[in-house]
Amino acid sequence: MNGPESYLERERRRVDAALAEYFPLLPAHPHRLIEAVRYSLLSQGKRIRPILVLAACEAVGGHAERALPYACAVEMIHTYSLIHDDLPAMDDDALRRGQPTNHVVFGEGLAILAGDALLTEAFHVLAQSAAADPRPRRALRAMREISEAAGARGMVGGQAADLAAAAAPADLATVEFIHVRKTGALLLAAVRAGALLGGARAPALKRLTRYGECLGLGFQIADDILDVDAPTSVTGKTEGRDGILHKATFPAVLGLPAARQRARELLDQALGALTSFDTRAEPLRDVARAVVGRACDL
Amino acid sequence: MNGPESYLERERRRVDAALAEYFPLLPAHPHRLIEAVRYSLLSQGKRIRPILVLAACEAVGGHAERALPYACAVEMIHTYSLIHDDLPAMDDDALRRGQPTNHVVFGEGLAILAGDALLTEAFHVLAQSAAADPRPRRALRAMREISEAAGARGMVGGQAADLAAAAAPADLATVEFIHVRKTGALLLAAVRAGALLGGARAPALKRLTRYGECLGLGFQIADDILDVDAPTSVTGKTEGRDGILHKATFPAVLGLPAARQRARELLDQALGALTSFDTRAEPLRDVARAVVGRACDL
Repeated sequence: MNGPESYLERERRRVDAALAEYFPLLPAHPHRLIEAVRYSLLSQGKRIRPILVLAACEAVGGHAERALPYACAVEMIHTYSLIHDDLPAMDDDALRRGQPTNHVVFGEGLAILAGDALLTEAFHVLAQSAAADPRPRRALRAMREISEAAGARGMVGGQAADLAAAAAPADLATVEFIHVRKTGALLLAAVRAGALLGGARAPALKRLTRYGECLGLGFQIADDILDVDAPTSVTGKTEGRDGILHKATFPAVLGLPAARQRARELLDQALGALTSFDTRAEPLRDVARAVVGRACDL
Repeated sequence: MNGPESYLERERRRVDAALAEYFPLLPAHPHRLIEAVRYSLLSQGKRIRPILVLAACEAVGGHAERALPYACAVEMIHTYSLIHDDLPAMDDDALRRGQPTNHVVFGEGLAILAGDALLTEAFHVLAQSAAADPRPRRALRAMREISEAAGARGMVGGQAADLAAAAAPADLATVEFIHVRKTGALLLAAVRAGALLGGARAPALKRLTRYGECLGLGFQIADDILDVDAPTSVTGKTEGRDGILHKATFPAVLGLPAARQRARELLDQALGALTSFDTRAEPLRDVARAVVGRACDL
């Protein structure tokens, strides 16, 4: 098979294989904790964020293989955020990636620790990779982007705003505020980190930043649309969960047709930001079509 | 006042002042999350770990001022671990550093996120400091030590083992396994990171590692003894909490006199590891006397 699916499928397998090497089940390690970590890390994810790191690195002429540990670190951060977000004190969800959530299987205490272990290991991998990098400053810049995006001013801040918004009906500005931080920040950081590792200069970085911003918001709108429209067999999550939780979503504030229109615009803008790039940016175009386009076609 | 107390007091104030600069309450940031972070980060802690970073840096002839951001990052990691350990799904404690625990004040969801934000910011601070460091590889080595000690093979692993041990009476080997990871690893990493930042060579690093190992275990035994012996006004924690939880502690498996004897031996060994150091190691000696010695004198 050719086209977007085969590229994404091949890169997903590459990321899966690399992730499986982390958190080995060694005798001296706390066995049950490692099991809890591997349960979530090695479940069937789309691996969008790590693939973005690799694809952005390639788009500017870098070697994707060198960016692979950074890609894995970003997926560890994403996985930790899913485990913590699913906890009873947060979204209280029982299903994720088509299987019971971490705390349902391992208990709340161990689920919290599995998330903590993943977040910490992500930075350990980044520190090790940067130390081994012939250009440590470039690697450190990527690490700064990732840590900034993951923290209180990014993903964690977005989840906190999401928690607060669950108490009252949200407006469009609130929904955008939450999504830009909760989902958009790490997606953008994945693109920028990959570009920095690949040696991107300022003009290319600027265009890829625009791509990442449009992709980040488009991705979340697509997710919201699928949550309304698609069955659990497609999303791997409890069907219509956002509606049950009165979550701040785009379909909820804009209506479904306008949300779909907005996703289509963002896909166009993401692709438009890549017009000056050659065929090496094709993987980035594939990702945008796959993850934003899926909701436009429904 | 002269002597250990005045040194520790001065350094504690230096660390407090530096910590207060992080997590500013800016309009664009999620206000309640930042409040939750600051509530725990700026509460009255002893600041042992950051002081160890500074003191170890000084002991090998480095400038403590340069190590200050690294010291703050270590304290952020320690504070996140306290917030998560106190959660209902973990130790379920209501009192910490003499005030209600984070989740009691802000709710479980925000407490989990405050911990996540602190852990992430710690690595952001480390990445920024390393990027600005004239010797980024030295800084990266310190970062690797800290992330290794904080993760599944260190602190998080120790907490997981502690959770598991709560189900059955623990033996001495289990207690040591837990303590070496849960408390010892980060204390040792603080010492080693400070030494690396100060430019320590292999022989000095080896001796300081010995110091850090003895201090780490001695610190935890002292903590266990104080939990049995001292009132809440001294520990800032719920009195006799470890006993109520059937926690794996040294006094529980060795008895109080033998635990005190073991603490005294570890203090002697920690000081013995520093005999070849000059007066610049006096702060490290002060820390050992203060945090391990306190339990020997009871």
